[in-house]
Amino acid sequence: MTRKIVNIALNGVTGRMGYRQHLVRSLLSIREQGGLVLADGTAIYPEPILVGRSEERLRAIAERHGLERWSTNLDQVLGDPDLEVYFDTQVTSAREPSLAQAIAAGKHVYTEKPVAASLDGALRLAAAAREAGITNGVVQDKLFLPGMIKLRRLVRAGFFGRILSARLEFGYWVFDGDLTPPQRPSWNYRKEDGGGIVLDMFPHWQYLLEDLLGPITAVYARHATHVPRRWDESGTSYDVTADDAAYAVLEFESGALASVNSSWAVRVNRRELVELQVDGTHGSAIAGLRNCAVQHRVSTPMPVWNPDLPDPIDYPAQWTDVPDNQVFDNGFKTQWELFLRAVAEGTKFPWDLAEGAKGVQLAELALLSSAEGRRVPVPRLTS
Amino acid sequence: MTRKIVNIALNGVTGRMGYRQHLVRSLLSIREQGGLVLADGTAIYPEPILVGRSEERLRAIAERHGLERWSTNLDQVLGDPDLEVYFDTQVTSAREPSLAQAIAAGKHVYTEKPVAASLDGALRLAAAAREAGITNGVVQDKLFLPGMIKLRRLVRAGFFGRILSARLEFGYWVFDGDLTPPQRPSWNYRKEDGGGIVLDMFPHWQYLLEDLLGPITAVYARHATHVPRRWDESGTSYDVTADDAAYAVLEFESGALASVNSSWAVRVNRRELVELQVDGTHGSAIAGLRNCAVQHRVSTPMPVWNPDLPDPIDYPAQWTDVPDNQVFDNGFKTQWELFLRAVAEGTKFPWDLAEGAKGVQLAELALLSSAEGRRVPVPRLTS
Amino acid sequence: MTRKIVNIALNGVTGRMGYRQHLVRSLLSIREQGGLVLADGTAIYPEPILVGRSEERLRAIAERHGLERWSTNLDQVLGDPDLEVYFDTQVTSAREPSLAQAIAAGKHVYTEKPVAASLDGALRLAAAAREAGITNGVVQDKLFLPGMIKLRRLVRAGFFGRILSARLEFGYWVFDGDLTPPQRPSWNYRKEDGGGIVLDMFPHWQYLLEDLLGPITAVYARHATHVPRRWDESGTSYDVTADDAAYAVLEFESGALASVNSSWAVRVNRRELVELQVDGTHGSAIAGLRNCAVQHRVSTPMPVWNPDLPDPIDYPAQWTDVPDNQVFDNGFKTQWELFLRAVAEGTKFPWDLAEGAKGVQLAELALLSSAEGRRVPVPRLTS
Amino acid sequence: MTRKIVNIALNGVTGRMGYRQHLVRSLLSIREQGGLVLADGTAIYPEPILVGRSEERLRAIAERHGLERWSTNLDQVLGDPDLEVYFDTQVTSAREPSLAQAIAAGKHVYTEKPVAASLDGALRLAAAAREAGITNGVVQDKLFLPGMIKLRRLVRAGFFGRILSARLEFGYWVFDGDLTPPQRPSWNYRKEDGGGIVLDMFPHWQYLLEDLLGPITAVYARHATHVPRRWDESGTSYDVTADDAAYAVLEFESGALASVNSSWAVRVNRRELVELQVDGTHGSAIAGLRNCAVQHRVSTPMPVWNPDLPDPIDYPAQWTDVPDNQVFDNGFKTQWELFLRAVAEGTKFPWDLAEGAKGVQLAELALLSSAEGRRVPVPRLTS
Repeated sequence: MTRKIVNIALNGVTGRMGYRQHLVRSLLSIREQGGLVLADGTAIYPEPILVGRSEERLRAIAERHGLERWSTNLDQVLGDPDLEVYFDTQVTSAREPSLAQAIAAGKHVYTEKPVAASLDGALRLAAAAREAGITNGVVQDKLFLPGMIKLRRLVRAGFFGRILSARLEFGYWVFDGDLTPPQRPSWNYRKEDGGGIVLDMFPHWQYLLEDLLGPITAVYARHATHVPRRWDESGTSYDVTADDAAYAVLEFESGALASVNSSWAVRVNRRELVELQVDGTHGSAIAGLRNCAVQHRVSTPMPVWNPDLPDPIDYPAQWTDVPDNQVFDNGFKTQWELFLRAVAEGTKFPWDLAEGAKGVQLAELALLSSAEGRRVPVPRLTS
Repeated sequence: MTRKIVNIALNGVTGRMGYRQHLVRSLLSIREQGGLVLADGTAIYPEPILVGRSEERLRAIAERHGLERWSTNLDQVLGDPDLEVYFDTQVTSAREPSLAQAIAAGKHVYTEKPVAASLDGALRLAAAAREAGITNGVVQDKLFLPGMIKLRRLVRAGFFGRILSARLEFGYWVFDGDLTPPQRPSWNYRKEDGGGIVLDMFPHWQYLLEDLLGPITAVYARHATHVPRRWDESGTSYDVTADDAAYAVLEFESGALASVNSSWAVRVNRRELVELQVDGTHGSAIAGLRNCAVQHRVSTPMPVWNPDLPDPIDYPAQWTDVPDNQVFDNGFKTQWELFLRAVAEGTKFPWDLAEGAKGVQLAELALLSSAEGRRVPVPRLTS
Repeated sequence: MTRKIVNIALNGVTGRMGYRQHLVRSLLSIREQGGLVLADGTAIYPEPILVGRSEERLRAIAERHGLERWSTNLDQVLGDPDLEVYFDTQVTSAREPSLAQAIAAGKHVYTEKPVAASLDGALRLAAAAREAGITNGVVQDKLFLPGMIKLRRLVRAGFFGRILSARLEFGYWVFDGDLTPPQRPSWNYRKEDGGGIVLDMFPHWQYLLEDLLGPITAVYARHATHVPRRWDESGTSYDVTADDAAYAVLEFESGALASVNSSWAVRVNRRELVELQVDGTHGSAIAGLRNCAVQHRVSTPMPVWNPDLPDPIDYPAQWTDVPDNQVFDNGFKTQWELFLRAVAEGTKFPWDLAEGAKGVQLAELALLSSAEGRRVPVPRLTS
Repeated sequence: MTRKIVNIALNGVTGRMGYRQHLVRSLLSIREQGGLVLADGTAIYPEPILVGRSEERLRAIAERHGLERWSTNLDQVLGDPDLEVYFDTQVTSAREPSLAQAIAAGKHVYTEKPVAASLDGALRLAAAAREAGITNGVVQDKLFLPGMIKLRRLVRAGFFGRILSARLEFGYWVFDGDLTPPQRPSWNYRKEDGGGIVLDMFPHWQYLLEDLLGPITAVYARHATHVPRRWDESGTSYDVTADDAAYAVLEFESGALASVNSSWAVRVNRRELVELQVDGTHGSAIAGLRNCAVQHRVSTPMPVWNPDLPDPIDYPAQWTDVPDNQVFDNGFKTQWELFLRAVAEGTKFPWDLAEGAKGVQLAELALLSSAEGRRVPVPRLTS
């Protein structure tokens, strides 16, 4: 069995997601299992080059995992002809220029979302990547969550009949940092730093919902800043300039509608932090990160409204969990394996920068809708 | 104890709500308990005059309950100088002219909602009633549901701190009548007969939400006809012309926002057919028809997103049911008692026709918003 | 509303089923509700004439229910030109001659099953009824059990995809009468009196299974007499000459197969006394007398056989009960109403003597199969 | 303590059962516990020689477990005079010649079932083994399952009185491989490769049922191919040529009857994947792989059929679980220990090739019965 080493620059690896999900749970995990075996028997073996701003933190990570290569100089890293893949997991505002530079250097690029802070920027990146002829991809990890995999299985099986509507509830209570330390970084709450829940989450909703329900044609959104004062990592109070909640209604080419609520100022009265309910003529499902429960039309109760008596129907009991029926690997790792395979075999990677631009587009149009108080059409991007 | 008989015409009593809730559970129930005792010791004893279109059905009801007065001639009934109160529970389209006639005849009027099919009509009725100087009222039964009473208790107690947002989910699956008989009358699905879920439910949402969160200032709504073909009471298929679902975002003077979903084409994955979640800086609550659960900020968990493990937090377990702490009487009856007391004592009845007009206004503006694809301001009606 | 009295002779009304289900729960219940209202507004009002062998028991029943007509002389009863309907609920061996006599007298006939002790007899009755041009019917009460109604709903809704197989388990422990009194009459255990579980139950399986799965084309059966000695109503021991269990495999025109076990010598480890499981490509259901639970293919777990660990799957938890979604009337009464309506309106009654003959045919061929040790084809009866 | 090494060739060890149950859970587990101690104090220490077709896979297994001997050359392995035991866990079609060769080489043989693809072949092996005077055995692992051990305990204790009947339900849903990957290998569905549920499971039913109920005297079976199209390991669709379900009625010398259903196209509405119910005059039991529940005649309820009310009896609640009362070791390992002991001490091993031939006989006669549509006698094999 031939082993082929692939050098991968990881820019932003000192962040929580970059370190934990992309480095440890994906690339190092692929190394531990002996590499990624291709159809021709070659084993792809990823070699991470850690890139970031803090020499001290990079060195610490490298030592912890027995890695030898790290750098604070992106130019130098990209100048190395042996580097094949550039991966970006920096803060949103720093992403576009770095990706552009990597593409210009002829590297294959893979990146966290949102790919850029504006649709224009995202489209520029997609065009540059297309012209450069490189393999490019955007992380769409939520597609690989067990709950969402099960939900997609239902769509494929025709379980819903015609899909009528969806309800997405995402959110939880982010502590303001006064009495209790906050569990999200303060830049998330500063518009000038690329913060805001719309920019953070609507790219996810775009790929998740379009994968299940088809193209989105219009969006109405109303965002809010429910908690205008917060305390940062150092305990200092600051004014929130970004949105911390958004209430949206999406429309789909199929005629389906979706109510989509995203909030960092809501208390969770659900099974999971995100729940997506899909209702169709033949059945309904409600999926979270892990679970997916269904109710077929033959199991649908007929409620009768009677204010004189407690409702005799136990509604949640009429739903059944979809069994796993498979082993679910870490979604970040699964997508890394698909990307590395596409790089090695020269095939197209389905979730490319052009796809990533759609997520930025939806976020941008949602903010526009909120500002202008109107339903905004979502034109089809020609990729 | 003096007993004073009050003659009350019940127009539309052969319908399900008119018969069951207003006649049997309210007026007959007040008679059984010996009447309604006023502050001065007088016992008000209601004497129903049944009014409708089917002689046979009126007679059957009268015989079943030992009542002596029924009629298919509204003119004659309203011409009786001993008649004090006119109550209307007809289909929506017939309501306005009958109420106008009763007001013109100098009767006190009480009515089911929506009070008219248009805001203009509703305002005309309110103005006529004001000029006539009669006592007038509109049924707002959902205010008296145990779950909503508990929720109001929380607002009054300052439990929420500043209220940030609300989420209202109402709906259930109405069978289309093909394989299983439908549980709602077919006129609900015909726009030309005053059908549609917006006209049916938004008057309820107006009084419920304004009671809890204060004045509504803007509405965005998107209605839909998810199931376009149904089978009627005789098993014949027909085209649905009215809306069977609506997805709305409401804005409040306080700055709070509400996501309000109403649907007859959704499967219930909740504890109750309607659930209203209110989130505030200090606590949150989720109330249905019967129950109301709370989570105070000191009980709020801090979730951390980790795709590698099942979420260790049992979110629903972090909520606690508010105890009843009182006996809840039938809401229709409670409101009848308040109305009859206002009639007898000459005091103002808080839920009058001017209030009822606000419900019609919200429904009308929601339909406008859906048609024009924009957020519509809700001007304050001067009553 | 015109009221029309219909005279109905009930022969065998002193038996448990005749008295309880046909007289009290069906005919008297129809009287109590004011008769059966036809499309033209006429109310059919049944007038029972009780027929039997014991004058004393007939008189007791008549007195208990305020009835005036009873007789031990069938000739006389059938000679009454005002008698319209003859109903037979005698022991099996007495049925055929009485039915033949009633048909010859020009009466409409309705009867318990099996319609005769032999297929020849059953066909003779069907032919006589056809020639006489009378309305005729056979009790097929199990079609009207809630569990079976729900199961039929699933078939109509296409829930199963292609149906592959069925498993029917019927039976319970009938005490032998030694230590504990027996709960079935001793004639059930005497072949010479028309006893035996095959003759008793296979007519039910014929109409139930053909209604769900279509025509039966072949049967293999093996009957047994598991308990050869019993004690009768007087405490005297006797030799059992009839079968008390039968193990059968049925084949259907559609290609489906059914395993059908019937036993009076089995202990019940099920939810109900009879359970019918149907498996199809898209889903499965298991129905009893009341309940019906389903498992759709999307909820089907993937078991992996591992002898080292307890199986982690809770199989029964993966099934969901089909909700009632309707009020179920007594099945015997429902069928009586359909029969009386067919008599009054001159329409064909679907479950007629020709249909009843099919049940006798299946029982007869099952006994033949058992005796000869071979799979026996079930030819289509031409009715 | 003397340690005696026994060399054992494991042919087919790369298969799932061979590797997991026979190598890891049995032989390596015996090594870990320090060998098998005989009556004379000698510790038998098994030394596996891995045999198979794939050098790479054999080497991988050897490395993983620190084993030194593996080979793709069976002749060479059998030619080693130090080899004492030959074990066969190959696919069915390859088994008979290899076993014959091992017997001819004078090795003790132990083998998975079915011992051969035909009864003639099985008898030839048994005869050859008898003549060679070697110790020989067939895996009958289901005898050692906790549920079956408990059931046998009940038979030995006379719990059942006279046994009347048995019901065996085995099966689960094997996914067809279209939407969900299949959980069984495709050769199971190809007759030409020795597939089919009858050949796979009837050898198990033979030894399990004869152990409990005594000799089988006749069989009726009807097999089916419920799902005629499947997708294989590579995702390619293929036509199913083997049976995937069988419905059988077995007869026993004792007069008992058994209904035996085996299916890979049934959804599980039971506690375990296989359940065997035994009914006797004095009590009944229902056993699975792990559990065994009983109902004694004194706990047997007396059901009364009343269609007007839900059955008041909770039938499953009337059964009681038999406690473990012992520690259950892995059944494969237990049987290996018994075999190695018989080899070492020269005693007869009860489950020998002659016994294994009976399982092949039952499968063969079941297929014959299905083809000819008749009950087939099962003659006693003279071993």
